[in-house]
Amino acid sequence: MPEQQFASDNYAGICPEAWAAMAAANAGHAPAYGADSWTQAAADGFRRLFETSCEVFFVFNGTAANSLALASLCQSYHSVICADSAHIETDECGAPEFFSNGSKLLALPTADGKLTPEAVRAIAERRSDIHFPKPKAVTITQATETGRVYRPEEIGRLAETCRALGLHLHMDGARFANACAALDASPADVTWRAGVDVLCFGGTKNGMAIGEAVIFFDTALAEDFGYRCKQAGQLASKMRYLSAPWVGMLEDGAWLRHARHANACARRLADAIVGVPGVSLAAPVEANGVFLNLSAAVQERLRMRGWHFYGFIGGAARFMFAWDSDPARVDALARDIRLCALPAAA
Amino acid sequence: MPEQQFASDNYAGICPEAWAAMAAANAGHAPAYGADSWTQAAADGFRRLFETSCEVFFVFNGTAANSLALASLCQSYHSVICADSAHIETDECGAPEFFSNGSKLLALPTADGKLTPEAVRAIAERRSDIHFPKPKAVTITQATETGRVYRPEEIGRLAETCRALGLHLHMDGARFANACAALDASPADVTWRAGVDVLCFGGTKNGMAIGEAVIFFDTALAEDFGYRCKQAGQLASKMRYLSAPWVGMLEDGAWLRHARHANACARRLADAIVGVPGVSLAAPVEANGVFLNLSAAVQERLRMRGWHFYGFIGGAARFMFAWDSDPARVDALARDIRLCALPAAA
Amino acid sequence: MPEQQFASDNYAGICPEAWAAMAAANAGHAPAYGADSWTQAAADGFRRLFETSCEVFFVFNGTAANSLALASLCQSYHSVICADSAHIETDECGAPEFFSNGSKLLALPTADGKLTPEAVRAIAERRSDIHFPKPKAVTITQATETGRVYRPEEIGRLAETCRALGLHLHMDGARFANACAALDASPADVTWRAGVDVLCFGGTKNGMAIGEAVIFFDTALAEDFGYRCKQAGQLASKMRYLSAPWVGMLEDGAWLRHARHANACARRLADAIVGVPGVSLAAPVEANGVFLNLSAAVQERLRMRGWHFYGFIGGAARFMFAWDSDPARVDALARDIRLCALPAAA
Amino acid sequence: MPEQQFASDNYAGICPEAWAAMAAANAGHAPAYGADSWTQAAADGFRRLFETSCEVFFVFNGTAANSLALASLCQSYHSVICADSAHIETDECGAPEFFSNGSKLLALPTADGKLTPEAVRAIAERRSDIHFPKPKAVTITQATETGRVYRPEEIGRLAETCRALGLHLHMDGARFANACAALDASPADVTWRAGVDVLCFGGTKNGMAIGEAVIFFDTALAEDFGYRCKQAGQLASKMRYLSAPWVGMLEDGAWLRHARHANACARRLADAIVGVPGVSLAAPVEANGVFLNLSAAVQERLRMRGWHFYGFIGGAARFMFAWDSDPARVDALARDIRLCALPAAA
Repeated sequence: MPEQQFASDNYAGICPEAWAAMAAANAGHAPAYGADSWTQAAADGFRRLFETSCEVFFVFNGTAANSLALASLCQSYHSVICADSAHIETDECGAPEFFSNGSKLLALPTADGKLTPEAVRAIAERRSDIHFPKPKAVTITQATETGRVYRPEEIGRLAETCRALGLHLHMDGARFANACAALDASPADVTWRAGVDVLCFGGTKNGMAIGEAVIFFDTALAEDFGYRCKQAGQLASKMRYLSAPWVGMLEDGAWLRHARHANACARRLADAIVGVPGVSLAAPVEANGVFLNLSAAVQERLRMRGWHFYGFIGGAARFMFAWDSDPARVDALARDIRLCALPAAA
Repeated sequence: MPEQQFASDNYAGICPEAWAAMAAANAGHAPAYGADSWTQAAADGFRRLFETSCEVFFVFNGTAANSLALASLCQSYHSVICADSAHIETDECGAPEFFSNGSKLLALPTADGKLTPEAVRAIAERRSDIHFPKPKAVTITQATETGRVYRPEEIGRLAETCRALGLHLHMDGARFANACAALDASPADVTWRAGVDVLCFGGTKNGMAIGEAVIFFDTALAEDFGYRCKQAGQLASKMRYLSAPWVGMLEDGAWLRHARHANACARRLADAIVGVPGVSLAAPVEANGVFLNLSAAVQERLRMRGWHFYGFIGGAARFMFAWDSDPARVDALARDIRLCALPAAA
Repeated sequence: MPEQQFASDNYAGICPEAWAAMAAANAGHAPAYGADSWTQAAADGFRRLFETSCEVFFVFNGTAANSLALASLCQSYHSVICADSAHIETDECGAPEFFSNGSKLLALPTADGKLTPEAVRAIAERRSDIHFPKPKAVTITQATETGRVYRPEEIGRLAETCRALGLHLHMDGARFANACAALDASPADVTWRAGVDVLCFGGTKNGMAIGEAVIFFDTALAEDFGYRCKQAGQLASKMRYLSAPWVGMLEDGAWLRHARHANACARRLADAIVGVPGVSLAAPVEANGVFLNLSAAVQERLRMRGWHFYGFIGGAARFMFAWDSDPARVDALARDIRLCALPAAA
Repeated sequence: MPEQQFASDNYAGICPEAWAAMAAANAGHAPAYGADSWTQAAADGFRRLFETSCEVFFVFNGTAANSLALASLCQSYHSVICADSAHIETDECGAPEFFSNGSKLLALPTADGKLTPEAVRAIAERRSDIHFPKPKAVTITQATETGRVYRPEEIGRLAETCRALGLHLHMDGARFANACAALDASPADVTWRAGVDVLCFGGTKNGMAIGEAVIFFDTALAEDFGYRCKQAGQLASKMRYLSAPWVGMLEDGAWLRHARHANACARRLADAIVGVPGVSLAAPVEANGVFLNLSAAVQERLRMRGWHFYGFIGGAARFMFAWDSDPARVDALARDIRLCALPAAA
């Protein structure tokens, strides 16, 4: 792939800060399974970032991070409320059900991938008999699969509803950095101060090779979570290679800088196609994705010019930007969209 | 940890060949989830190494590799025959039972961690009623947890027994490289030519940051295994960082070179303590571990001199060597053992 | 409850034929776990009834029967296509996901609870990537939760589609007897001759105390199913009390006679309310249920007159009839509906 | 089987008291899923019997009762301490691991099937790292599989150890009635007063067709247990047929009377073979089983005379007695043992 594509933000490689930390961690020997100093430093880094004494665990990927976190919030006969566009519902091959041994996902239709207190309450109160799995957790994706972000006050209202209904609140933060960048809000304000119990903070899409952090703000929920990770094949023996990159990302704010860059590239594309006939935003651009309404013909012409992208919810074309997206290449994409959308192009 | 310890072979870092391949893989973008060229190259590399068209999957760690492989060989109401010193029985926190949703491990006492055809047959034929989980797979560890290796003809006889009893044969190869080095045998001879159905080839202990390869020689058993990995949180989005290191390890024989070095260090220690009064080998040294009978007092004195090691099966002290173990440091350990064992030392 | 209600067909007790067989089975001792003569006789009775050498297993209830049967058709990373009104989706508290360790249900909206070949094909072909659980089975309910029945040719077309797509076909026959009675078709024609692989034949709603039969027409799918039942807590030690009632039900056709009676009661109610203003059938009456569109006010008045019933899909009132429903009481219900629906009643 | 055998106590049928209650319960209709008056009465009956406000659930069999109870005491990454002769370890086909999604059983060798505080403490404290499932529950069988009973003070000491170690205490009471009869102790004294958290009280071996009661003395542990039963296929729709027999058994003390009779038959056999050369008790007779050391030749001769029995732990021959065992037939067995043991018989 000689030229950058924007099909997914996990096509990008390892950012310099993560790489440098891995290189530093690679000097000599270190105790295994997280008893090394890098892991301690990364966990402390998160506690500083979130301004609270949270419990932090490092696992390999987002599938596991979210599934393990949700499994720790419910039993097999409970259920988890999510948006029907949530990644755990659409793209995890039944992982949440597997890790929890059967917890059902109650997937709600939403306008923009964002749950509302009203929708949560309605589904939570719809059934209360033992023939239907009892709702026990709500999961929200920040930013959502369509690039929207929950504002702190929206999260706060959701959390209030959850508390009233006896539900835990989980945040899938595969693109949490992008959400923080979009909101220009502190990580604490977007999470525990708003009422989030557990956050899965994604490192992979933020510029790491692998690795996500599961962060329990309600530390009682973290009881024995280390055992859970181990049993589920998510305890790295050479843990420092999962944790050191986080040290690199956190210590000079690279995590936020990279997210801002990715978001800016999305904004750049969105701005560049304003006014192109027949092309419109399928969703407001808030984070690092652009969802465009493009006719099938335009999509076909774009593909013929060498562009890769996913058709997405409702037929929109998805373009995702990463920490290393090249603005010149974004401009090239914008030019090609403009070109392909020309009536003459037909 | 300023000086090398030999408490575990996963204290070592990433070897130069794996590191260089990761660096090379880090140039630019690549498709996710294994559709990249590195993953293709690594799988092809394994097929060349094993001289057969096996199916290859890359997962994060050994816990998952072995558990997923075993889960693919049996249903929840089946059982898996293993040695009672097998890592899956003693140190995986119930992972095989979790991934398989309940398959019971039938752990057999063994002299040296090695199963015999007779022992396998005896346990497999002990029960045939539906009140006990039906044996469906046998797993052997190569090299074993106490540093012993199965010779190809031993594996062949086990495989013959397995076939006769309708059992699949799985090999936990967390230290497969060390076994190949010890035997000076081709990987094919130690596996499929001897009758092994599935091998988990360990990369972590061999010099990688993370990553194990699950290799199906009986390719029919690999059906839908990709789905299994995905659902169980073992599909890396940036797969190239799991696979590229294998390319580096395989292309110039680094995997075998490193294993030979580790084995040689073990041999070096074993040779150096011959004749030390009160010190003896708890097991013959065949791979990269040395198990020493040391009195509690000697162990205590060694620890006071700064050495870390695990007490192991039957009270022996375990020393493990890695791709980067420093022979001078091995010699230092030998000297200290000799010193601590002196009657005067008391 | 001094007077019969029609809220559910599992409010009824044990029919005389089942009771007599239990009494007969209660004479003296018998080997446990299905090695008794009653269990043999019941299995043989099913083979005669279905005119084929099927494999038959007796389990405690429908939750388990359907969940175990489906679990035997797929792995945890597979999915099962069903109607969104299917009992396994709406009223089993996640049992199918639990028994299968995570198989996702793909619940399709339907007009009448009946799947069509087109809908099955569309969902089965919608995704083919490993990020979504691979469809492996289709389940249909005969009769459906809204009292509709699949005709043999409808089942045949579904089965053809299933075969073409590599899907197994399962039938939830909690009210299979009612469906056979409604269709006046042989059990063989409605099942294996039409392409059904596995049937769960419900005994409880047909007049037994407990007990369902899982019948594999594709006997290869029954491999080790006995172990599966045992592990899942569904192997009765005193099996004769699960199987003998079936002997009683099958030997003189009681199963069909009772189903016909229940269906006739449903028809009797439906006929009796024809022309009542403001009252209409929410679904055609084919089996033993009547679903009535009744205004909230009419429902309230009925309840005040002492009638129990469930509000159901779309607000309809459900009335279910059993083997012992009293026609006089059906008539009383009809009279009260007529009365409550009178404008003057307001 | 024209003549009584003593191979198992589940060869017996339904006792008159249970049968009569089922007959009474069979009059007319009743609400489903436990909302009927019989189920209420049975639960109240248990509360009276145990002199405490325990939570009571009715499930189909002992496999499920014990597995569900244990699953409610631990997570998948926890472990359960049991005797290596415990039924859950030897004869449940992996059910506890299945229901708990992987909790490992830590099976301890014992002299007589009885755990001791010392053994529990030793295994519970042997490992405390996350590579081994954390012990969370202890299960004891009352009476044990070899017919021994725990005295209240023995249970009390075990419970004290459990509390000190943070372990829940579960009692498998498949033959709880026989234990109470043997001890002549009140059910309360043998359970919650001694520190038992959860009891599975067996009805099947006590004279019922099916059905066990799961009784939570620590009612906090019963949270959402009804959902757990439902999801696991253990909620009977016509619940009255599971609960009414308990009413019959409890209301006039039939449960204890039957157990006493069975115990007396065991004692009768034991007394009758005193002094027979070459025949000895393999275990003291405390409950309803007799375990005899018989030479292979004697066993063979007994079988040739038409007697059925299981060879058991250590080669002993097991004879089990039930509520309806015929003393004359016990005497006949004793005579035949005496006869077969005669040197002349060879």
